Formats: sequence, structure tokens, C-alpha cells
Amino acid sequence: MTLQVGVIGVDMIGREHIGRLAHKLTGATVVALSDIDAKAAERIAAEIPGAKVYASGEALIKAIEVQAVVVATSGSTHEGYVLAAIKAGKPVFCEKPLAATAEACLRVVQAEIASGRHLVQVGFQRRYDKGYRALKKTIDEGVVGRPLMIHCAHRNPAVPESYVSDMAIVDTFIHEIDALRWLINDDYVSAQVITPRNTRHTHAKLDDPIVVMLATKSGVHVDGEVFVNCRYGYDIQCEVVGEEGVANLPEPESVLLRREGKLSASIGQDWKMRFIDSHDVELQDWIDAARTGKISGPNAWDGYFAAVTADACLQAKNTRATTPIVTPPRPAFYE
Amino acid sequence: MTLQVGVIGVDMIGREHIGRLAHKLTGATVVALSDIDAKAAERIAAEIPGAKVYASGEALIKAIEVQAVVVATSGSTHEGYVLAAIKAGKPVFCEKPLAATAEACLRVVQAEIASGRHLVQVGFQRRYDKGYRALKKTIDEGVVGRPLMIHCAHRNPAVPESYVSDMAIVDTFIHEIDALRWLINDDYVSAQVITPRNTRHTHAKLDDPIVVMLATKSGVHVDGEVFVNCRYGYDIQCEVVGEEGVANLPEPESVLLRREGKLSASIGQDWKMRFIDSHDVELQDWIDAARTGKISGPNAWDGYFAAVTADACLQAKNTRATTPIVTPPRPAFYE
Amino acid sequence: MTLQVGVIGVDMIGREHIGRLAHKLTGATVVALSDIDAKAAERIAAEIPGAKVYASGEALIKAIEVQAVVVATSGSTHEGYVLAAIKAGKPVFCEKPLAATAEACLRVVQAEIASGRHLVQVGFQRRYDKGYRALKKTIDEGVVGRPLMIHCAHRNPAVPESYVSDMAIVDTFIHEIDALRWLINDDYVSAQVITPRNTRHTHAKLDDPIVVMLATKSGVHVDGEVFVNCRYGYDIQCEVVGEEGVANLPEPESVLLRREGKLSASIGQDWKMRFIDSHDVELQDWIDAARTGKISGPNAWDGYFAAVTADACLQAKNTRATTPIVTPPRPAFYE
Amino acid sequence: MTLQVGVIGVDMIGREHIGRLAHKLTGATVVALSDIDAKAAERIAAEIPGAKVYASGEALIKAIEVQAVVVATSGSTHEGYVLAAIKAGKPVFCEKPLAATAEACLRVVQAEIASGRHLVQVGFQRRYDKGYRALKKTIDEGVVGRPLMIHCAHRNPAVPESYVSDMAIVDTFIHEIDALRWLINDDYVSAQVITPRNTRHTHAKLDDPIVVMLATKSGVHVDGEVFVNCRYGYDIQCEVVGEEGVANLPEPESVLLRREGKLSASIGQDWKMRFIDSHDVELQDWIDAARTGKISGPNAWDGYFAAVTADACLQAKNTRATTPIVTPPRPAFYE
Repeated sequence: MTLQVGVIGVDMIGREHIGRLAHKLTGATVVALSDIDAKAAERIAAEIPGAKVYASGEALIKAIEVQAVVVATSGSTHEGYVLAAIKAGKPVFCEKPLAATAEACLRVVQAEIASGRHLVQVGFQRRYDKGYRALKKTIDEGVVGRPLMIHCAHRNPAVPESYVSDMAIVDTFIHEIDALRWLINDDYVSAQVITPRNTRHTHAKLDDPIVVMLATKSGVHVDGEVFVNCRYGYDIQCEVVGEEGVANLPEPESVLLRREGKLSASIGQDWKMRFIDSHDVELQDWIDAARTGKISGPNAWDGYFAAVTADACLQAKNTRATTPIVTPPRPAFYE
Repeated sequence: MTLQVGVIGVDMIGREHIGRLAHKLTGATVVALSDIDAKAAERIAAEIPGAKVYASGEALIKAIEVQAVVVATSGSTHEGYVLAAIKAGKPVFCEKPLAATAEACLRVVQAEIASGRHLVQVGFQRRYDKGYRALKKTIDEGVVGRPLMIHCAHRNPAVPESYVSDMAIVDTFIHEIDALRWLINDDYVSAQVITPRNTRHTHAKLDDPIVVMLATKSGVHVDGEVFVNCRYGYDIQCEVVGEEGVANLPEPESVLLRREGKLSASIGQDWKMRFIDSHDVELQDWIDAARTGKISGPNAWDGYFAAVTADACLQAKNTRATTPIVTPPRPAFYE
Repeated sequence: MTLQVGVIGVDMIGREHIGRLAHKLTGATVVALSDIDAKAAERIAAEIPGAKVYASGEALIKAIEVQAVVVATSGSTHEGYVLAAIKAGKPVFCEKPLAATAEACLRVVQAEIASGRHLVQVGFQRRYDKGYRALKKTIDEGVVGRPLMIHCAHRNPAVPESYVSDMAIVDTFIHEIDALRWLINDDYVSAQVITPRNTRHTHAKLDDPIVVMLATKSGVHVDGEVFVNCRYGYDIQCEVVGEEGVANLPEPESVLLRREGKLSASIGQDWKMRFIDSHDVELQDWIDAARTGKISGPNAWDGYFAAVTADACLQAKNTRATTPIVTPPRPAFYE
Repeated sequence: MTLQVGVIGVDMIGREHIGRLAHKLTGATVVALSDIDAKAAERIAAEIPGAKVYASGEALIKAIEVQAVVVATSGSTHEGYVLAAIKAGKPVFCEKPLAATAEACLRVVQAEIASGRHLVQVGFQRRYDKGYRALKKTIDEGVVGRPLMIHCAHRNPAVPESYVSDMAIVDTFIHEIDALRWLINDDYVSAQVITPRNTRHTHAKLDDPIVVMLATKSGVHVDGEVFVNCRYGYDIQCEVVGEEGVANLPEPESVLLRREGKLSASIGQDWKMRFIDSHDVELQDWIDAARTGKISGPNAWDGYFAAVTADACLQAKNTRATTPIVTPPRPAFYE
């Protein structure tokens, strides 16, 4: 039995997911598309045999042939579509963020609990990266003992003028926010943000770099550098310091060159390529789970927790003070 | 349109390929199976909806619903199945070796040429490994200039007593034989084999390690260590020395550990895992090509050339002399 | 002309320095020794032809044949000896700390300025380490652009029970305090200290690990992990993130091993061995400078600045607040 | 007691050794100099207080104040000076080669044996390199088990037109010839040389690269690439494959850079810098041994064995055949 998927949003990541579902992954077919730009939806549908275009995301969600939904629209519209999918009792894969605000995320959480079924997965793809998985396995097996500290860095070669300060947390560090608590099975309790002097390569509306620090429930200290005009490449570093040793996220494999006085490995420039494989694994995992009525990836609570943490980071940056991260207790539904 | 594939041989690699075709890759369905152990074929068929069992490989090849054939039986039977597939005008993916002897391989080459169609692909999966592909790209782009030498090593942690001297060339180094000439777009002209003293971990019927040296048409020197009881892990090394620099095959990515006085990366023990991904890429590539009536991977000529080279290596080992590698000129059909 | 050196303190580092001066380095002879344990001084003197034992450090400093002084006693006695050397107009190499308190250090600074001559060098040996020098050269040449952040770690495998919390800053991180401002030609303006949860390998009187953060005048953010029961080895990490790239302190060279499933380099266990060569370079440099009446290494102002910074770190740790680092302006004498 | 050294040959390496003996090392003074260019000797002597110039090397060797001799003249003159030093009963450090031919080396060996005293050390400095010492320690401790193969490479960025084919063995690979048999405590029994196609960066009188293969008494296979126009840097590689694992010569330590899409370490260009420290260690070791009437480094037999091996390599290259390496049995004097 093939999972019949409807995709809302056909631009960018939406288009990529449609390609994955239709041509690369197994167990799913794209049967419905929708986009605010109806012509764009028609154009894409023309390439996907059997895909019907719906006038609205809501209509797509209700469509009888649609068994599961992928939401890849802009963030402000996510809440509505996810709530509608929950109401329809259909599994929904929602790109990050789960919703535009922490409060909106909490409404999704409450709706899902009320529905009594696990239906929502959020698109935090790092959990599906081969390197992060190997790192988590190392930690879970106790190879480095109990974690005490995590030092990490998220570096982009450059960002456009439209990328402003808040995005360093909400769009960029949000990946670390989700991945690190998953990595060490812990939750955050407070945030602090430090702003070193700016690189000359940034612009007036962007503090770059920044250092975000998080403290966890069990006392782990996280420091995460976010540096989005680092010039040299897209580079994700993560070092977990434990009681018995230290483990680092693998460097992506690369040809080793000896040339012109240098022994070198290449560092990619394109963030899309760094985690391209993890998107395949993520969506395949979602398909496989959805076909059996389950969710195995980051859930609505994870989406909510990330939103609360990001808000605290933003506040911490503005106030220059350590800011508590407060949520209701994790519902039993998500244990 | 889905490619309807029949698989001959359901043991080991055959079984793995059936799983890939049925569950992991796209564009193909397994419609027919055959094995000398008919019960084994029945057992596997029971798990693959729509797969019919045939009493013989020949019957399977002739079956009207079979559009393409995978041959995964023992080497001595390959020639007959491949010739039958050519005769039936059906694309055939044949695990290495293409046939039991160089002469048999040449018969396949001649039959394929006579058929006028490119139908045969041989299962040399290294050409589909991410690392080898990155290394080939580096070379093809001229980053290290024209190749002058290749130093490589093929190390296994251990082999069973049933693994004897010839297998070091015919089963193990055969992968380097195919991959290296593809890597540098060259052909071999002579072989020499050196036998250092044996490791204490080998047995009476196995010279281990050995060093195989190949000279190419354009004068590149290859030295390849084959060491199948190296104890420490499955390790594939390849260094290409060019006129402007040196390029090494990437090490597989690994968590970097600091523990117990060591900074370490892990080395895998299982050869199956080292190239597991490349089998997926290889077979998907074959499906995609076969659906459009083409072959894009290692062809019958490559299979023949590898067989001639392996024979020369065996002779070189026995005679301790440099042995010429002689083939007819490459037919225009394979340019 | 050979520099005639008197050494005060013949235990531990004092004894090592005597060995260096007498047997390994060039341009100096040890002519005088002194120690509160007079018998120990006599024992060592017996091995050093021509070395006379003095009853007190003060007497040694005044001795006519003593042209330069090495102070290697316990920290509380440093101030007196250094002031006496200044008074006698003799170059003095004083092991860290320059004096027991920041105030005492300032008195030394003032005395040296009053004397009108550069006479005092402090024993911060990292500035003489080959790796740190290479890193500083990289930064000074602008290879990574202007520094924005430094991430570093100072890890020991284990410490004895006598090692308590303050020592993590005063004895351990003090090396980073001096080395980092030298590395980037900058001064610190504030300190913050974070205490993650303790490792199970620490004891009641030691918070371990801690993270010390320093902000510099020009806005560089420093975070330094101090983890003295890290178990796995003595490991010094330093990463400078600049506007154009990132530079890391070299790992000490090590045989690369492939063994038992691991590709590994060894990490030393003994902090003494990590910087053993730098002590030779440091003291040779001091001899060479002293023979021409100069000081080229860390001076009294550096010793004072380190003391003020360490005090601020201690206060920051106790108050859990960001603490300003305040000194008078750097005297022109030390420009 | 200081060792009073006379140096014959004040150009290049001679001048460097004079500087070492006079200013950097301990336990020696330069008391006599000699050179065929008498004016050059006078110029250098003017900078070395107490150094007297002699009209000939023979006169210098006989001079009463000369207790030990360093020979740093051109190779053709070595035999005469070394024999004279033996006759005078004075320790002599002779730069490589020990003498111009294997026969001449054998005469030195016989003269030294006849003298009944160990007086001759040959300047193979790699035995004093920190990296090689660490590698030898690893092997001697059995960490990788009994050696089976050594793969090595000796690469220079470029050589002048005056550097012709034989020099690749006699001046360049000679270092591997001495170092490798010391490394594994073994002797060579045969040589083979392979000439891949030439790099476009070589000239008419130089085959570059070449691969030299040596077999040892105990059956170890050595393959050594010599590539002196490799363009990218001066690079010395050495991998020892043993029964239990593999050990590689350490890469020289280097700042790790992340810049312009590359993670890189630098590779030196200047062969002088690569082993500069080992010259200090070598000569200090010689001084220390000579002061007690001993030789602890490579001796006359090692010099002879290297010469015989180099001759066999030259013959192997010319004949393209495996060439036996034949010497008399090692005299008990050198056990």
C-alpha cells in the first residue's frame, strides 16, 4: 500500500520534497498539490502524473484521496494547516517552524493531545544526518560518559541583506536548539547570548557572530557560536565533552589533497548540500511511520520546545541577561 | 513505467539485490525469481508480492513479463545467463565476474557486439562509491595534474581458511583492477606480483600480504597491497600521485573521539558496510539506464579486461616475472 | 661572556632550571644557589661545579658574582626577591606568579619603572611554545583576518585532592590568561565564569569543569573550558575565529596508528612533557636578552595584568556575574 | 671538559655545523678550521674566538689541540680525512657519504676495525628526527607487530638542472636506505627500480619519479617513491605495515586553518627546515658520545652498507632487473 500524499507549498523546499516523494523515496505517491500561487502548483502538477491541484491547503487536507500531508509554506501559515490535518486525522509533516509563535505551537500540541493520535512531525532534519546519528550513538552507548558540556558552531559563508539579527536564532541556531537536546536527551532551562564585535562582513541589521549559551536541566553547559558571514564555508561543528572523554561530530568525508604547499580537505559552501541526504532519510522515515499510523521523528512537543527556547534566546540577546526557559511539564502523551 | 526485473540467484548478494529492487530503489519491481535451490526461491518469492518462481534461469530470461535480468549466481554460471539475456535482447546486470574465464568474457563481448545493443553491466560497485567518485572528479578536473603513480591498499581484518592465494587477486584485488583504470581512464599493459614474508595470521594455502604492481599504457605505475589478515579493520586506501599534486580517497566519516590517551576515529570491520551505499547507487543507476535502453556502468569489455588482468596477475605471481597484459584492441562498440 | 646566574629555590621547577642553565642552554653558568632548605641547596650545589650556596635569597641577589637571578620559590616570596633584584639592578626571571596579589604585582611594576630599567621577566612559557608561536604568526600575518572569538580548552587527566577550585583559575587558566592576550595583542575588560554540573571524578572542594569567558577591549569573546579531571589526557586546545577564517593551535605531532579498529594518534598524559621544549626556549631567550641588558618575554606588566584578570575571574565565579577587569592605563614604559 | 673540535670544510653544511658547535650545542668548542678555500676559512674563523685555520685537513687532524673532527667537505675527499682521523685516534663525524665508493667505505671499515676503537660516525640525521624516533619506538615496542612492508615517499618540490638521475638514489633515497634498516633492525638483500612515466616538470637527464623497491633479509618488502619535482612541497612519508597494525611517521605539526573553502595544514617547501632540529640532536649526541670515547649513531658499517645498497639500486635501475645486495657478513666489531 502506497501512502497518498498531498503537498501544500510548491516553492523551494516544497518542490524538493515533491521530487523526493515522487521519484526518489519509496512507499509514497504525490496525489495533491496546493500553493497560493495556483499557476506554480499547476506547473509542478504537470510533471507529476496523477497529482491534482487544489485551490487551498484546507481543501487539499480534506480531499478523500489525501492520506497524509506535507506542509512547506511560509511559517505564518503552518498552524492552520497542521490544525486542519489533526482535525482530519491525517499525518502531517510540517517544515520548521511548527507555528509562528510558541503560543501557536502550544495550541498544536493541545490539539494533537485532544485528538488522541500522534500525527505531527516537524522538519528538523539534523536528527536524520548520518554524522549526528553516529555522534548520538556514541553518547547513548556511554563511550564518553555523561555529557557535561557541548561546544558547537554553525557557520555560513555569507547571508544576504535580508537576513537580520533574529534570524541567526530563529532560522539558524534553531537547528542546534532541536538537535542538541535530542543528542543528550535533555531539556534547556536558561539561555544567555553574547555579542562579540561584529565581523566587517556583516551589515547594519545583523549582529554577527553571536554566541548562544544554554543550560540544561541536568546541568550541561552548551555554547554555540553562530557566525553566518564566516567567509570560508558552511561548517557545522559539535563537540560533546563527557565525564570519560570527548566526541566530535564527524567532518564530512572529503578527498585529501596535497597541493601548493597545503594538505587540505574541502569545506562545502552550500548548506543545502551538507544535509541533503538527511532530508531523504527524514522523509522516508516519515513515510514509513505514517503508513503504520505512527510518528518517529521530532514531534509537536519538540516543535513547541524549540519555539520557547528560541524566544528565550531572543529575549536574552536583547536584555543581555540570563533568561529562564519555561514550559509546562512535558505531557505524558509525548513521553 | 516500472522496470520488471527477474533475479537469478537468491542467496547472499542476490537476496540483497531483491530487497533493494523491491523495497529501497525506485522504478523497478521484482517479477521473477529463480535459483538452483527452488525452495529458497519460493521462500523469497513469498515475501515479494507478484514475484513468480521459474524453474531455471533460462526460463526466467525468456519469460514475457521479465524486461531486465539480474544475475547473482555463482561465477561459473554467469556466461550462460548473460548470453541468454543478450539473445533475448534484455538488459542484464551481472555480478562479478562477468564469466568464469577471460575467454568466456570475450565470448560475451562478441555476442553483445553482434547483437548491436548495449545490454550488459558488470557489478563492480566501487565506481558508485561516493569517495571514489569524488576522487575521480578531482582527477578528471586536473586538480593534481596527469597521474603518474597510484599507491593503494586493500586490507581485510581476517579471512576464513577457505580463502586461498588466488582469491587475493580474483576476488579481492579485482575491485582495484576495475576501479583504478576507470579512475584514471587508462588500461594496463603489464603486471608484477611481490610476496613479502607472510603474516603469522595467515594459513598454509594463502600468501598474505602480497603487492600487485601494474603498469598502464600511458606509463602510470600502480602498486597495490592486498593484505587480508591485517587484523585491525577493513581499510581501503588509494593515493593518486599526479604532476601537480597528490589526492587520496576520503576516509569514511567517523566520530572523532578523545578517550584514554587517544585521539581516534573508528575503522570499520565489515567490508559489506564499507560499500553498502554504493550498491544502492549502482543498482538504481542500472534501473534508470535500463528503462531507457542504455548501460552507463562497467560494461562487458570492462568485465573482460578485468579478467585478462587478473589472469596476468596470477601468472605474474607464479612466475615471479613481469607479465604482459594482452587483449585485442578495444572494439569501437565500447568507445 | 657568560651570564653568571643565581637561582633562588632548588625544588621542582628550580631544579629543572638549574639543569637547563648548567647543562643544556648556552651562555650561562650557575654561580649561586639558595633555598629555605639549606641542605637541599648544598646537595644540588655539589653537582654544579663553581656554584656557591647562599643563606638567603637576599644575600644571593647581592652577591658580586651574581649577574642575573632566577626566582623559583613558592609564590608568596616572589615579590621580595624581585624587588631586591630590581634594587640591585640585576635581570630577574621570576616563575609565575610575579607576586602573591595584584597589588604586590603593581608594586613590582612601580619599582621597575622607578628603576628606569627593564629587568623583570615572568615565567609564562606558552609564549615560547612552537605551536603557539606558529598560531601567533598566522594571526599576526592576517591569515584569518581580525580575531573575533577564541574558543579554548585546558584539560588535565586528573588532579590531586589538594587541588581546589581557585587553582583552576590561578594555577591552570592563568596560562591562557597570559597567552591569549599576547596571541591577539589585546587586553581583557571583563570576566564571567560558568559552572556546569561537576564531573563524577572531582571532589568536594573542586568545581570541575568550569568555563571562563573574557571580553577584550576590542570586543573579542574568549571562552575557555578548564577541565582538570577529564580523564583522557593533557590536552590544550585553542581556536581563533577571525573575519576571514579560523586557525587552530597545532596538535602535537604523533605517530598515526591503525590498530584494533581505530585510526589513532596518542594524547600525552603529562603536562610537563607538553611544554617541556618551551621552557628551554624561554630560558635561552632570557639568557640571550639578559646578556645584552634587555627583556624580551612577558614582563612585569604582563604579570600584573594576569593577576588582575585572575582576581576578576575568581570574583566572577563567586558572584556569578560579569565582572569588570580594571587596571590603570598601561604605562608608557611597557609599550 | 669541553670537546675541542676541528671542522674540515666551511661551506654550507660545514658552516652550519660550526655555528651549532660554537653557539647552540653544549660541551664543544671549535678550535680549528680548514677549507680548500683558505680565505673562506679565515672569514669564518674571524667569527669564532679561538679558532685557528689550518692549511689542510690533514694538518688540522694532526693538530694537538684538536680532539675530534667534523668532515663536511665534498664526498670525494671524505675517505682520506676519515682514515687520517682513525690513524690519529680521534673521533670523526663525517657527513654522508662516508666515502666516494662502496670499496672506499669498506677500507674505512677495515681501518677502524684495525684501530680497535669506535671512532667514525656518519651524518645520517634522520635517526635523530623526533618523528622517526617515535616511529621506531612504536615498532620496537611491538605495537604493530613484526614489520611486513614499508611504503614510503621522498618528495621535493623541485630540483635544479644539475640534479640528474643517479642523485635521486645517491643523494635523496640514501636517507631512506639508512633510516629504514635502522627503523626495523634489518638488512637489505635485493633491489629493484621502477620508472613510471616522467613528470612534465623534469628535465632530459632526470627520471622523475622513480620507485625503489628493497627486500630485506627477513622478507620485509619496501617500496619507496622518489619524486623530486612533485611541486607541492617537501614531504616525507613512511608507513610501516606490521602483523598487528600499521604505523605512520608523524606529519610535522602545523596550524590547522579553515579558510577559503579548505581545511588545511601547511606543507613545508624547504628540506633544510624539515630536519633542522635533527641536526642539532645528532651533533649534540656525537659530542656527548665523543667526550666519553664512544660512537652512538650510524657507524662506518652503516655508511658502507648504504653505499652498497645505493650501488645496487643504480644497477637495478639500469638493468631493470632485481639486483642482489651483497656484502661480507657484518663484522663482530659492529654488533
